[in-house]
Amino acid sequence: MSGNLFIVSAPSGAGKTSLVSALLKSNSHIDLSISYTTRAPRPGETDGKDYHFVSREIFLEMAKRGDFLESAEVYGNLYGTSQPWIEKELASGRDILLEIDWQGAEQVRRLMPHAISIFILPPSLSALETRLHGRGQDSAEVIARRLQAAREDISHVAEFDYVIINDKLDEALRQLDAVIISVGLRRDSQLSRHAALINQLHK
Amino acid sequence: MSGNLFIVSAPSGAGKTSLVSALLKSNSHIDLSISYTTRAPRPGETDGKDYHFVSREIFLEMAKRGDFLESAEVYGNLYGTSQPWIEKELASGRDILLEIDWQGAEQVRRLMPHAISIFILPPSLSALETRLHGRGQDSAEVIARRLQAAREDISHVAEFDYVIINDKLDEALRQLDAVIISVGLRRDSQLSRHAALINQLHK
Repeated sequence: MSGNLFIVSAPSGAGKTSLVSALLKSNSHIDLSISYTTRAPRPGETDGKDYHFVSREIFLEMAKRGDFLESAEVYGNLYGTSQPWIEKELASGRDILLEIDWQGAEQVRRLMPHAISIFILPPSLSALETRLHGRGQDSAEVIARRLQAAREDISHVAEFDYVIINDKLDEALRQLDAVIISVGLRRDSQLSRHAALINQLHK
Repeated sequence: MSGNLFIVSAPSGAGKTSLVSALLKSNSHIDLSISYTTRAPRPGETDGKDYHFVSREIFLEMAKRGDFLESAEVYGNLYGTSQPWIEKELASGRDILLEIDWQGAEQVRRLMPHAISIFILPPSLSALETRLHGRGQDSAEVIARRLQAAREDISHVAEFDYVIINDKLDEALRQLDAVIISVGLRRDSQLSRHAALINQLHK
């Protein structure tokens, strides 16, 4: 019996972080994968909770061993997802959620083709723009660049298995939860999880 | 934009009828398909609600026209599911649920391969036996025959897309609801339903 691996991706401004954090609060069968990173902790961040903070040297050693299911360099910092940890958790029957971008999703699908990927969309262009303006302290140029990046992310929506429109948080949460529950009810999962019962029932 | 067709099957004693009726009460986006039958209405049954009651002559005419997505003869009475009605409902965006046995499910899959099929199992052999004894007025021989039939039904579990163990009704209802919601969130459904939004977002 083994758990399922879920990938959740979204452009910034789609409300993914609130949605995932609400999911983790309401669903006790799923754990978030904590990334490794070489960047320094920010005030308030805890090692092992927000990230596993490691030196560049250790990160590169892990990469050399093939430990990363996916990794990326952003603004000179390295980020990666530990494959041994995920495989151990899945084998123990836990569901695991990865919060990564479409490039990361592409890498994961190649190594773990059974991963189920979910893309979160904002409900409208104006909602996206409003959310990207949100912090209210950035120049028009910065916001335009952010919008352009979001649109590029969104152009990868068709690579994902499920699509959720995040209009109202509680409705989007119900939908995300439904996807996760339903995947566990697929024939192959259930026949292996309940093999003894099924054997008893139809002998 | 079109709805999805769901098939729900179960051996008798799995609690399918209560589960489906609870689902129809809680989910307003799905309709139950009403079968056509040549058997006489029983006291309390309403034409067009429990069944469409028709003469054998009309049933056979409909069958000749190819109106039935699936049909069966049970104790000399004919039963059938109207394909034109289902196609009209699906085209209008409604989800439709068929409560049929595994033989019916097999017929439907051949004609509508996108149908999503769900099998309901009792939580244990003893629960199944208890439920089959339920009415308390049947001979040991009748009950043994019923149990044998249930076991034959259960041997077809692996032909279904999803499997739900009906231990507690509210939990099984939550699972059935999750399957139905999640199917509507699959990429192809969502990309077609929200084509205008997606086009606006990533242009």
